[in-house]
Amino acid sequence: MLRERIIQQATTLFGLHGIKNISMDDLASSLGISKRTIYKNFKNKEDILKNCILVSQEDRNHRVIEIMSQSENIIDGCLQIINHYKYARLPVAIFWEDIYKYYPETYQYILEDAEKSNIYLKRLLKEGIEDNYFRKNLHFDETVFMLDISTCIVIYGIYSVRVSLSRTDMIFNIMVNMLRGISTDKGIEIVDKYIADLPHSNN
Amino acid sequence: MLRERIIQQATTLFGLHGIKNISMDDLASSLGISKRTIYKNFKNKEDILKNCILVSQEDRNHRVIEIMSQSENIIDGCLQIINHYKYARLPVAIFWEDIYKYYPETYQYILEDAEKSNIYLKRLLKEGIEDNYFRKNLHFDETVFMLDISTCIVIYGIYSVRVSLSRTDMIFNIMVNMLRGISTDKGIEIVDKYIADLPHSNN
Repeated sequence: MLRERIIQQATTLFGLHGIKNISMDDLASSLGISKRTIYKNFKNKEDILKNCILVSQEDRNHRVIEIMSQSENIIDGCLQIINHYKYARLPVAIFWEDIYKYYPETYQYILEDAEKSNIYLKRLLKEGIEDNYFRKNLHFDETVFMLDISTCIVIYGIYSVRVSLSRTDMIFNIMVNMLRGISTDKGIEIVDKYIADLPHSNN
Repeated sequence: MLRERIIQQATTLFGLHGIKNISMDDLASSLGISKRTIYKNFKNKEDILKNCILVSQEDRNHRVIEIMSQSENIIDGCLQIINHYKYARLPVAIFWEDIYKYYPETYQYILEDAEKSNIYLKRLLKEGIEDNYFRKNLHFDETVFMLDISTCIVIYGIYSVRVSLSRTDMIFNIMVNMLRGISTDKGIEIVDKYIADLPHSNN
């Protein structure tokens, strides 16, 4: 349980302040435990970081599979996933920047995981094409890459530094338009109904 | 003229090998001139780099304005720009990585320029909405951000390290699907005709 608590707290703190900004002392004192206790469970900060990412990835994968298994059709499922990200609390930009700059091994690990999650994405895309929700003349591999959620997260992670737009709005906008872009008329109809039903109906 | 020649050669070499990999000696000897001659024209490597970027940006802006002024409609113009990038020789990923890592001032400059070019993009998007080529219910600012070409270039710059896909195909795919995603039925019709007419008709 302690291990899980440490991971959970680190995920929150890293996500709010970046990784470099949080010391092992910060983490220990915010949990009311000693640094020694943390080191009994984890080798070092990067070990904690890797576990944070592992848990987040597992959560994400479970969520996607659950949503997809319960959705009416593939477009509906995609919209539900997109909708989830509209309200998700995502790590601040500096979190991704720290990983990119200071934890190349973890960065590599994230990229490799993205390759794995692509396998599931490929199956979904293929199914959507067979069911005539997605265009038949899509460039398949490039589209899988494009749809990969982690792509959006990295984009926004790097760019949100400069723009004053809401980060979730930005991801939401990119995802909705990409989904609409790859959809057939039948698919677009569902997307457009979803857009029209949005609270402020301007997406 | 010498100044222009140095900028042109540096643009080629940096674009092929990254910035760190090219020394002032490499640049000088590839031009058959002395390093001293280069230093008469530029303060240092970053000064040359900034000028390379300045010239590329001017070229890009001229190209976009010229294409737009000659196109039948806004969708046609966008497709011509997208088509240009399909065959463009773009800098290798390490070029962008070097800027991001080692030349923060230049990186900042690129971001600021992107903000400026957004002004033109905003005008185009507004026009496209008025002419019923783009959806009226777009999230305007987020869409401008999304369409900003430099976004795509940075995305692909960072990601192309890991994926085996062609970089130009990837940008092309993202741009075509985003354009289609924001378009009305009238706009999609033009995009789809363009896609169907592509040499291999699978984009």
